[in-house]
This record gives sequence, C-alpha cells and structure tokens, in this order.
Amino acid sequence: MRAVVFDGELSVADLPEPQPAEGEALVRVLKAGICNTDLEIIRGYMGFRGVLGHEFVGIVETAPDSGLVGKRVVGEINCVCHRCPLCQMELPHHCLHRSVLGIQGRNGAFAQFLTLPAENLHIVPNAVKDEAAVLTEPLAAAFRILEQVKIESSDRVVILGDGKLGQIIAQVMYQHTKNLLVVGNNEWKLEVLRGLSIPALHSRQPLERAQADVVIEATGSHEGLPRALELVRPEGTIVLKTTVTHPTAFDLSIPVIHEVRIIGSRCGPFRPALEALARGTIQVAPLITDRFSLKDALGAIERARQKDTLKVLIEVTRDA
Amino acid sequence: MRAVVFDGELSVADLPEPQPAEGEALVRVLKAGICNTDLEIIRGYMGFRGVLGHEFVGIVETAPDSGLVGKRVVGEINCVCHRCPLCQMELPHHCLHRSVLGIQGRNGAFAQFLTLPAENLHIVPNAVKDEAAVLTEPLAAAFRILEQVKIESSDRVVILGDGKLGQIIAQVMYQHTKNLLVVGNNEWKLEVLRGLSIPALHSRQPLERAQADVVIEATGSHEGLPRALELVRPEGTIVLKTTVTHPTAFDLSIPVIHEVRIIGSRCGPFRPALEALARGTIQVAPLITDRFSLKDALGAIERARQKDTLKVLIEVTRDA
Repeated sequence: MRAVVFDGELSVADLPEPQPAEGEALVRVLKAGICNTDLEIIRGYMGFRGVLGHEFVGIVETAPDSGLVGKRVVGEINCVCHRCPLCQMELPHHCLHRSVLGIQGRNGAFAQFLTLPAENLHIVPNAVKDEAAVLTEPLAAAFRILEQVKIESSDRVVILGDGKLGQIIAQVMYQHTKNLLVVGNNEWKLEVLRGLSIPALHSRQPLERAQADVVIEATGSHEGLPRALELVRPEGTIVLKTTVTHPTAFDLSIPVIHEVRIIGSRCGPFRPALEALARGTIQVAPLITDRFSLKDALGAIERARQKDTLKVLIEVTRDA
Repeated sequence: MRAVVFDGELSVADLPEPQPAEGEALVRVLKAGICNTDLEIIRGYMGFRGVLGHEFVGIVETAPDSGLVGKRVVGEINCVCHRCPLCQMELPHHCLHRSVLGIQGRNGAFAQFLTLPAENLHIVPNAVKDEAAVLTEPLAAAFRILEQVKIESSDRVVILGDGKLGQIIAQVMYQHTKNLLVVGNNEWKLEVLRGLSIPALHSRQPLERAQADVVIEATGSHEGLPRALELVRPEGTIVLKTTVTHPTAFDLSIPVIHEVRIIGSRCGPFRPALEALARGTIQVAPLITDRFSLKDALGAIERARQKDTLKVLIEVTRDA
C-alpha cells in the first residue's frame, strides 16, 4: 500500500498492508487531515518514526466483530493496555503502555490502510459527510476543554491562536458563551472567524489585561503562555493546548500572586464531537482549505506549513 | 517608634507612630515572624519601600469598635477597597487597589506599631500563645491549599521544600493524608519533619516519576516547577507557592501531554488556621528556631538567611 513515512526524511513509500493484531480492525482510509502535531513530528517532536497521521475517516475492512465490517468509522488515537495503574485509575488516555496512532509506536493514517483496536472505532452517523467526519479528532480535543473547565454563558473567554485548532475551539466555545474573543496573527484566518460572527482581533491590537475568565492557549508557540498570563484575571483559568518542546520561560510569581489555574489539555471525547457534527452546529466548510491525493501527500504537508491555509486534507482512493 | 525600614538599604530607624486612617486600628506589635518574602523584598521583589514584615501578633491600642481595644489579634495582610470589579466578584485578596502589609504600599509589622483595617483583625483565642499566633499568616497560606484542591486520605502528596512554609504545609497536609512525602535539601530540616513522623527525603535521593496525585511546590526556587512536573501523575495537580521573579524555563509540552493542573496559591483563611492552633494540631515549637529583639532585627534577618534555621521571630517590647 501507499503511505507517508517519516524516518528522519519524509517520503511517500510502498509498504505491506498492515496486519491487525488481536482485537484490532483493519480500516481503509478515505480521508485524513494534517495537524500541527504532524508538522512538529517532522521537526523531531516525540522522536516518532513510521507512517504519519492521526485524523481520519475510513471503512472497516476486517474486524473482530463482523458487525463493524463495511461501516464508516473514525477512531480514537490512544491504544491502551487496560491493565497498568493509569488504566486502572480510569485514565486510559494516559496509559503507561499506550501507542498513539501516527504519533507514538503505531503507524498512522496517511496511508491506504491502518489498524486500530476495534474498541477505538466510532461509527459515523449518515448525516456526517466524510469531510466533516475527518475533523472528529481535533473537534474532540476541543470538547475535552468542556470536560475540564466549566464554561458559563457569562464567562469572558479568550482564545489565543487563529489556526486550525483555535478555529475549531472557537466554534465549540461560541456555543457556550458569546463573550468570546479570538486573538490571532493572520488577518485572513481572523476573517474566517468573523464570517461565523465570532469576534476576532489581531494580536498587535491592545487588549485589556487581566480581564478574561478563561484563556485557551492554542497558538502552537512557546510565547502563548506568557501572553495568556497577561490576559487572564486573578483566579482565572488558562487551558494549554500547545505542545512545543521549545523551553518556555516566564515569571513564575505571576500565576502565584494571581492564583491562576493552568490546565494542560490533550485528546477528547469522540461522542459529543460526532453529535455536534451530526447536528450541524460546527461549520466544516470554512475550515477545510485544501485537498490533495495521497500520492501528492508531500505537497499537502508543504501546503499545511503555509500561513494562508487551515485544514489540509489527504484524499485516499483504492488505487491511491 | 522603632521600625525596620527597607529603602534600598536595610536599617532599624526611628519613625513617627503611625496614624490609623478611617476604619483602621492601631496595633502594638508583640512578636513578628520573618518570611522568605521579606528576604525576597530585600533582593528587590515587588519594588517595596517601607517598613518590612507581615506576620505578627499584637494588642489593639485604638480601633473604630472599642470592643477590639486591648484585644490580642493577628491580621490579614491584604487591605482592600470593596468596590473594584475583583472585590465585587468576591475576590478581595486580588483587589485592584489593595495594599499589602509590609509588601505593597503599606508599612509592615517589624515595628512597635502598625495600622490595619479593623476588619482585617482576628482575635486570638486564649489557648493560643504568642509564639503560635505569630504563625497564623503562613499557616493560613497552607490552609489556602485545602480551599483550592480536594485532598483525599488516599492521595499521594509530595511537598517540595523543607523550609518554613514547606514545614507548615507538611503539618497541615499530614492531618489529611498519611501518604505524604517532603523532599528537601537540608538534613537538619528533614529531621525536624521526621521528628513529627512526617516522611522526609533528601532531594538527591531518587524518586519514582509521575506517581504523586498532588505536588506542592514550596522550594522558593525557580527549579521547583520542573521538578514538580517530573513527580506529578497524569491529570494530577501541582500547587505553586513559590514567588521568585527569576524566569522559569520548562518544556511546555509536558503538562499538556499529561494534562496536569497547575494552581497558584497565595494567602489563605485565618479562621481555620487559628482553630488549628487552638486545638493544638499544629506543632509550633519545632518551627521556631530563633528569637531576636527589634533593635537586633538586622541580625534576625541575617540569621533568617541561613540554612540551619526555620522561623526567626522578632520580639517587640514597649521600650523596643
């Protein structure tokens, strides 16, 4: 099969079709999405080697439960052991022995086929098109915030970052509070948000300090946290979504004096994400800017690095 | 009156007796405690100029409510406006216009007399001796943690720091969980903890990573947070007590991947602190290592800088 392999260098290669292990399903990929984490991995993040990609929608080819075969699915990316202390504590996303699709110890979704534990798969409702379903994983990451922080309709929420994840988080938060502001660096991306009635400001514009009840940091930059600390009110909350390995330096006395809560936030629940897509409360069309075939995947990744783009999709066919 | 003044240089000076403003009481200081914040202020923290000191017990000389006169009191250090948005949000400790005794815009307690709003004062129960009462303020800062984080008796709690605040926090936490470990750098201070049956280890000893449900960072060093991030489990909590202005650098992806909660923690409630002192559940004697008179206050501060000491008290008399 054709697949996008990173082994220090990036290439589109021919690999053997993967063999599902016990409990796993074989999934034929229909579409996959490029995430900033993929771009970070290519820069060395996580030390990952293998097939990239963790956002996908596909068709089940084989599965332990034959009822899944032929179904259109999306899949949770953390594959867990169910036995380690963290699994026993009902923190399976933090399983000590986990592999993570296209990120850690497991080949990913930029390929004609992938394998995942059948328990990771969610059948996609008919109302959800492929181009929406492929966004389930990042949308779930946005819903994760709602599991961690109670957002009241009166809360002043600031989202730092107008990129792919910032846009998706903004759409989710806008369902919960209209007192929302996205701060970004790219006028074109800010305009996408304004087109959805979501207030959006360029980061060079002055903002009142210490006013936000919640600041969601999705800049993808090590400069995001110091900025969030300026904007959050005393006893307010900062949600961290950025995974950069660049050391972040800041004055530690600021969160102590203001008694700020800082919460790291990673993967989220697929069910509310799929339900939101089925209800149509998330506008998918403005988020998807480019489509490439799998054989042109290197061009897709190059395109995803550029500033004037949001979600870049890789479309996979039987003949790749 | 005699007072310890910091104006870039430290001195014991003669100042006019302070005049209480409307709503304020005049307090004759009996004893005051030296806190690391005082030492940080002398290094330039907060840019404070004036009389140092914020931990005290004293006798009310004059007050708007005559019922307070002659009473032995301790005092909350944040003096607030009751009108700004943060006061209106019931976050008075974060009042935008606050002054803070001996820390920000208000002369402090290393003096024969101080003034504070009468509403800040708490009458000390007879069962609480002066040497215990003077610890009310740092003890309240330890009780603040219990307002912010639910500590279960099964929780594994690690306290980083064996200094004055670490010791007080350890005693409070030990009431809530026996699954407690203090990690410090000073064998003598660790021995004080062991004398109270509290497990204590030198920081050079290896510790299992990612095992603690809660890590309380009270090292007073910018190296505390990176160490706390090593020790806390996924979805665990770090409480930050250290106020150092030295920039802290760490890999931001770690708290995101492990979805750690980091909570800044500052001043706390006086009532439970005084109740604990009255019940005798806090061992005061091992915490107080030195006593100086006000005229020898510079020697007291010099002593407080040394490693083989815990709380240094300044004792104040009518003739100073």
